Amino acid sequence: MDSAAVVGTGLIGTSIALALRGRGVATYLIDTDQEAARVAAGLGAGIAGPPRGPVDLAVLAVPPQQVAAALKEHQLRGLADDFTDAASVKEPPQLEAARLGCDLARFVGGHPMGGREQSGPLAARDDLFHGRPWVLTPSALTRPQTLERAERLAELCGARPVVMAHAEHDRAVALTSHTPHLVSTLLAARLLHGERSQLGLAGQGLQDVTRLAGGSAELWTDILGSNAVAVADVLADFAHDVDDAVEVLRGLSTAREPEQRRTHLEALSTVLVRGVQGRARLPARGGTGAPSTSTAYAAAPRGA
Amino acid sequence: MDSAAVVGTGLIGTSIALALRGRGVATYLIDTDQEAARVAAGLGAGIAGPPRGPVDLAVLAVPPQQVAAALKEHQLRGLADDFTDAASVKEPPQLEAARLGCDLARFVGGHPMGGREQSGPLAARDDLFHGRPWVLTPSALTRPQTLERAERLAELCGARPVVMAHAEHDRAVALTSHTPHLVSTLLAARLLHGERSQLGLAGQGLQDVTRLAGGSAELWTDILGSNAVAVADVLADFAHDVDDAVEVLRGLSTAREPEQRRTHLEALSTVLVRGVQGRARLPARGGTGAPSTSTAYAAAPRGA
Repeated sequence: MDSAAVVGTGLIGTSIALALRGRGVATYLIDTDQEAARVAAGLGAGIAGPPRGPVDLAVLAVPPQQVAAALKEHQLRGLADDFTDAASVKEPPQLEAARLGCDLARFVGGHPMGGREQSGPLAARDDLFHGRPWVLTPSALTRPQTLERAERLAELCGARPVVMAHAEHDRAVALTSHTPHLVSTLLAARLLHGERSQLGLAGQGLQDVTRLAGGSAELWTDILGSNAVAVADVLADFAHDVDDAVEVLRGLSTAREPEQRRTHLEALSTVLVRGVQGRARLPARGGTGAPSTSTAYAAAPRGA
Repeated sequence: MDSAAVVGTGLIGTSIALALRGRGVATYLIDTDQEAARVAAGLGAGIAGPPRGPVDLAVLAVPPQQVAAALKEHQLRGLADDFTDAASVKEPPQLEAARLGCDLARFVGGHPMGGREQSGPLAARDDLFHGRPWVLTPSALTRPQTLERAERLAELCGARPVVMAHAEHDRAVALTSHTPHLVSTLLAARLLHGERSQLGLAGQGLQDVTRLAGGSAELWTDILGSNAVAVADVLADFAHDVDDAVEVLRGLSTAREPEQRRTHLEALSTVLVRGVQGRARLPARGGTGAPSTSTAYAAAPRGA
């Protein structure tokens, strides 16, 4: 791959562009906010503005609900031979792109699994995706060369390409990213009901569990809205578990007999043990399912 | 304060003892597991075994359900003039201590708001409570000198004494610590239902939001069981919010009219904005409600 274009020079797009520039790929930066593209260019992420002729691959680093329209627009303009995107949801943009009559042979959905709390080009890092999975979701129409170029893009960014079906990806991120984001958000919103003296006791644990809630409300409305079915399924199962836990705690607080109390404590203990077991299933840092060798990652990202 | 005893040489007890030793207080280490007391002594936390005569203050650093029995036992033995504890729940141990006929004039409940993921004496740090609140819950019976000694203990550990009523403390930690722990645990337990290929996509965000779930299931069964009423109240409110979010997502996935969809997206956006606002209410690190000047804290603890 000799040349690329990045459409959308926020955190993700600029990080991709920085990585490509670092590997010698001629990279063009396009954003509806031209100032953002110039900032990215100033960081060394490439050249602000469109190329003269088509580049090899264009990456649409825009929110999920804008992917299909951006694909349509830039295919019509002949921005690139092949196209991919970087959105956190894969099935709805694909369906919308089909509806808009995009050239689906030259498009493959993509989702680099990296991110940070901060947003915008100034938060970008060329190692944001080092050692991380980069999901690619070819459709039946995607031509092999398009998939190969997207795989090459992932590798140039130090990521590990992982091919999945659209719906499979969307269910996976509903479990591992979108529902956790929403749960963190709902818990943080509960703090609006706390007294200042109560919140003064908060420690690092509460900081950790609510960290995701600090993300962009606008972007996450788009992401969660785009993946509503899959997130609703996971969140409904979670809601059921929460209701059960409330029952156990209510049972404990009203239990009169030691035997009753013991039964409820055992149920509570089971919940806590299952939490320990669930957490133990998480891959080691780097998300490879095995300990990562990427030291660059250890200091950096958080999953988008 | 010239002399102290720490009963229970786990993470919290040993950290307190290390801080006291660092300030020149003669400190005795007592644990039903004598090996744990010897390990703590080997770390420089004090002398393993009981003192010859009563020390000024004994700290009962045992789980909530063991505090009252430990107070009874060590008051009978004459371990110290005054007693405090370090448990995460304050009202039930106080009530149980009254039931057991302890000398409540010479006891004040305490809760140093610091901790780490790891447990045991080897994880202890003399700066674990630096810049953190240390809640003290005197009863109507507590004599002034006992409270003063406990305040001095907190200060010797670099913490900030905060006097609260028992129930007020228990409601505050239900919101800021216990419910977040349980929510993190319930979310982590959901991962037991995920495929390995799904979990491979997990990133730093999921690590953060489930970090508390990695805590000791045994200790947390005790803590949550001891504070069941207050936690159930907060968790029930949270459950209501989760149910509402499921409804919004279901509505989004079935909405046929753009107007319907817009209404649901606005509701979703409100949830996310409230999360951002709730998180913004958290005190800066150090838990003081203002930016902490304690650089020692920045690298260290997580709330228990």
